[in-house]
Amino acid sequence: MAKYAIGIDYGTLSGRALLVNTATGEEIATAVFEYPHQVMDEYLPCGKKLGMDWALQHPQDYVDVLANTIPQVLKDSGVDAADVIGVGVDFTACTMLPILSDSTPLCFLPEYEENPHAYVKLWKHHAAQPHANKLNEVAKELNVDWLDTFGGKISSEWLIPKIWQILDEDPDLYAKADKFIEASDWIVWQMTGVEARNACCAGYKALWNKKNGYPPKSFFKALDERLENVVEEKLSTDIRPIGDKAGEITAEMAALTGLKEGTAVAVGSVDAHVFVPAVGITGEGEMLAIMGTSTCHMLLGKEEKQVPGMCGVVEDAIMPGLFGFEAGQCCVGDSFQWFIDNCLSESVVNEAKERNISVHKLLREKCEAKKPGESGLLALDWFNGNRSVLCDIDLTGMILGMTLQTKPEDIYRALIESTAYGTRMIVDTFNENNVKVNTFYAAGGISQKDPMTMQIYADVLRMPVKIAGTTQGGALGSAIFGAVAAGKANGGYDDVYEAAAVMGKVKDEIFYPNEENSDIYDKLYAEYKTLHDYFGRGENDVMKRLKRIASEG
Amino acid sequence: MAKYAIGIDYGTLSGRALLVNTATGEEIATAVFEYPHQVMDEYLPCGKKLGMDWALQHPQDYVDVLANTIPQVLKDSGVDAADVIGVGVDFTACTMLPILSDSTPLCFLPEYEENPHAYVKLWKHHAAQPHANKLNEVAKELNVDWLDTFGGKISSEWLIPKIWQILDEDPDLYAKADKFIEASDWIVWQMTGVEARNACCAGYKALWNKKNGYPPKSFFKALDERLENVVEEKLSTDIRPIGDKAGEITAEMAALTGLKEGTAVAVGSVDAHVFVPAVGITGEGEMLAIMGTSTCHMLLGKEEKQVPGMCGVVEDAIMPGLFGFEAGQCCVGDSFQWFIDNCLSESVVNEAKERNISVHKLLREKCEAKKPGESGLLALDWFNGNRSVLCDIDLTGMILGMTLQTKPEDIYRALIESTAYGTRMIVDTFNENNVKVNTFYAAGGISQKDPMTMQIYADVLRMPVKIAGTTQGGALGSAIFGAVAAGKANGGYDDVYEAAAVMGKVKDEIFYPNEENSDIYDKLYAEYKTLHDYFGRGENDVMKRLKRIASEG
Repeated sequence: MAKYAIGIDYGTLSGRALLVNTATGEEIATAVFEYPHQVMDEYLPCGKKLGMDWALQHPQDYVDVLANTIPQVLKDSGVDAADVIGVGVDFTACTMLPILSDSTPLCFLPEYEENPHAYVKLWKHHAAQPHANKLNEVAKELNVDWLDTFGGKISSEWLIPKIWQILDEDPDLYAKADKFIEASDWIVWQMTGVEARNACCAGYKALWNKKNGYPPKSFFKALDERLENVVEEKLSTDIRPIGDKAGEITAEMAALTGLKEGTAVAVGSVDAHVFVPAVGITGEGEMLAIMGTSTCHMLLGKEEKQVPGMCGVVEDAIMPGLFGFEAGQCCVGDSFQWFIDNCLSESVVNEAKERNISVHKLLREKCEAKKPGESGLLALDWFNGNRSVLCDIDLTGMILGMTLQTKPEDIYRALIESTAYGTRMIVDTFNENNVKVNTFYAAGGISQKDPMTMQIYADVLRMPVKIAGTTQGGALGSAIFGAVAAGKANGGYDDVYEAAAVMGKVKDEIFYPNEENSDIYDKLYAEYKTLHDYFGRGENDVMKRLKRIASEG
Repeated sequence: MAKYAIGIDYGTLSGRALLVNTATGEEIATAVFEYPHQVMDEYLPCGKKLGMDWALQHPQDYVDVLANTIPQVLKDSGVDAADVIGVGVDFTACTMLPILSDSTPLCFLPEYEENPHAYVKLWKHHAAQPHANKLNEVAKELNVDWLDTFGGKISSEWLIPKIWQILDEDPDLYAKADKFIEASDWIVWQMTGVEARNACCAGYKALWNKKNGYPPKSFFKALDERLENVVEEKLSTDIRPIGDKAGEITAEMAALTGLKEGTAVAVGSVDAHVFVPAVGITGEGEMLAIMGTSTCHMLLGKEEKQVPGMCGVVEDAIMPGLFGFEAGQCCVGDSFQWFIDNCLSESVVNEAKERNISVHKLLREKCEAKKPGESGLLALDWFNGNRSVLCDIDLTGMILGMTLQTKPEDIYRALIESTAYGTRMIVDTFNENNVKVNTFYAAGGISQKDPMTMQIYADVLRMPVKIAGTTQGGALGSAIFGAVAAGKANGGYDDVYEAAAVMGKVKDEIFYPNEENSDIYDKLYAEYKTLHDYFGRGENDVMKRLKRIASEG
């Protein structure tokens, strides 16, 4: 009798359920539920205006995802709930909320309905930037040893700045909150009745480390006297490795979703990270890039290494027993879209209309008619700053080599190539620091839709590029963890390595580097590197000075 | 009784006559005649195919301009030919042709009709580039002292490379030619029967110098044994200063044009240079920029000075008795048009259509809503290389500071600003070399149509910018020289200074620098200068390497 696992993937605007055959990885049914409250970045439901850079969500939406999508996939697949052996969940992060000790969100209490700080702070809530800046200053002053683990800089998106903002702006609400928790852990709690905090969020977003735990009280005290005991008072030191079972579906959750009471539930994870098993990566040397508006890179290693400009290295956070390295590029598809929105000439638009193809397809056709380097253009991919390896949000884009003969497709291609060079910079930095990268896996929208870009990446990286075999890598990855939570005895797997090898998948088509192109790209990358260092490592801080002039104006 | 002068302005595609009141400068009538043979860059009239980079003209077209436009302006104005006291001519340069000793063009001879080398080589005939390259090499090897006068590099557009190409590719035709002559001098010869070669073409395009004459025989011999005596055999050492009278209208020319036999004709000049008196410039410190697709800068001085990166300094060539300095920017309006043609988003095009205004006007509106520096962008204006002060055709454009918020109008404005910085670089270089610039005059299409750009120039240069009071600066300038050729006794002027003061004109509106904007532009210019030197003076030759990679591909 076939067994099934369900993965629930919580994104920024909706949640998705995917029902997967545990023996084959076959994706049987999927359902999406859009959050009724979406992203609240201007007003609360009561009409209260939010400040600049706020981004909130409503936790009821997360429960509604379960209530809507799980019954749907059961119905669409015709699978008996008794054959669903496990559920896994992945979430955006750090997406956090203040709760009571019984897990009730403060925003569910009538007296806090109109209080913005009572709601979920979404990952892209950036209003804690002043607190992040202060935290970075203090960490540097105290010369803490963990800052390098996070590329030398903590983001305003992370947990401690968000908590500190609440304390600072609403100490009463801070006092009322029994705990602050990641939404991933909160939803698992709703499903199982168990608080089982995951190592992935704790490690990548909350400064936690398997060996050393959280930073010491003295650090938090240096930030703010009132934060001295934040870990004991508001968090938890019971952090569970990825791949663990968190608990089982409660009677109440069974009634809501149609799942059987007692079905295994895995500890939660971060949306990007569960892609790793979803493409079948189980060991060292295989980098996964999730390529969309921005790119997130993940890599496994047996040892903790400090790699300059990485976003984090966390044990047990991507795959149990291994260190997960993360790096990122702030702006990938975003810059291609910027070009389409702001720089695409009418002639290209009209030609695409006449031929009834997308402008992307037309531009790709025009690009593919040319050889690498033929346009004479070179760009820096910093339209949204640089995450890895420079960790500098004040850097900006550049394009060089234009002549009166430069065509729109030349610029488009130069932007694509610049992101490939940015990726090579990350790969080279890993290699130079003895975290080897041999193969490159690509997932996300660009990997599925844009073979030209994938070939350019293969040529620039001089590595084979494998493409995710699913468009639902988050949900598939979570289903894999669901199957592991269930265990082999129940038709699942005893470890995620075995599960990933069976259920994870890549496409048959692999992009191999073209030697001739790679030789040209080596030369172009050398030029990129020179400019990368010139503009990015302090020799000419013109980009920062221009930003300052712009903001003073 | 009012007296009149006629200026004839020979452009790339047509010739124009302008009839001007000599006492007021009032432009009474104008007529344009398009060259029937236009620019021959693909085929000869007989159907013979031309090579790459060729650009020829037919000298009969120049005569036809006189035959058509002069009767027209006489008719339209109702002016009696007896009251037309003088004629001046300006021409593109170096636009040259091989002739017999009686001035017959070789292409008029039936046996040469199908020989491309027998025709006029237009200024933009670039097929002599290999000869120019060789000439520059030899000049450097010999360490000649005149190379600096021309910014260290001779252009393929100039006379000697063009002559050398003919010798190299068709020695028989070279032998047949009694002379090579500038088209400006040839047409004056047709009008007057007198060979009166002008110092402007000789000085700026043929390596002639008032003090030293042409380069010595040894130099020409070093180029090619057969060129040793080229000056004596094929040119003339009788070079006449600008402002001289060349001769008088012949009976034949009078019959052709309706002018009176004996009407004074000035020695010819170069189209750009006659703008100087046309805006009323008569002395030092006043720079004129003719701003169109590219910009030509002219400045007068009492002493010969070597200014790095200038295109030339020639005595008697712009105004008699003074040294004329010339500089240039290869790409001004051309880069704005490149942007419109290749990078203008559909949304801007549609908005302009809806509002029924030009895209330039719409972009200017959007730009003017922002302060200098607000976009955070900075560009290098090298889309067509850099003429002054770097003299390097292998440099290319750059733009820096882009974010996902960058708008089309930001790029447009950055391109405009980059050309203003390029101009400031030229102005600063003159000032640093003790050739002072106090006021900036602008002529040409951009000066007439684009007040925003003129204000940006005033702000960037921290100088008042005055705008030419005529859209026909070439023809007006030539009419001024016509009035001088006639002399005071005949209702003209005895010198060009007096004539320019009366007949030259600027608009009433002057663009004064806005202090607040200038302060910001000082900072932006400092950044431009750093990048200008970094990319332009050898610190990072990435632009050249990219061009090499592109050409190897």
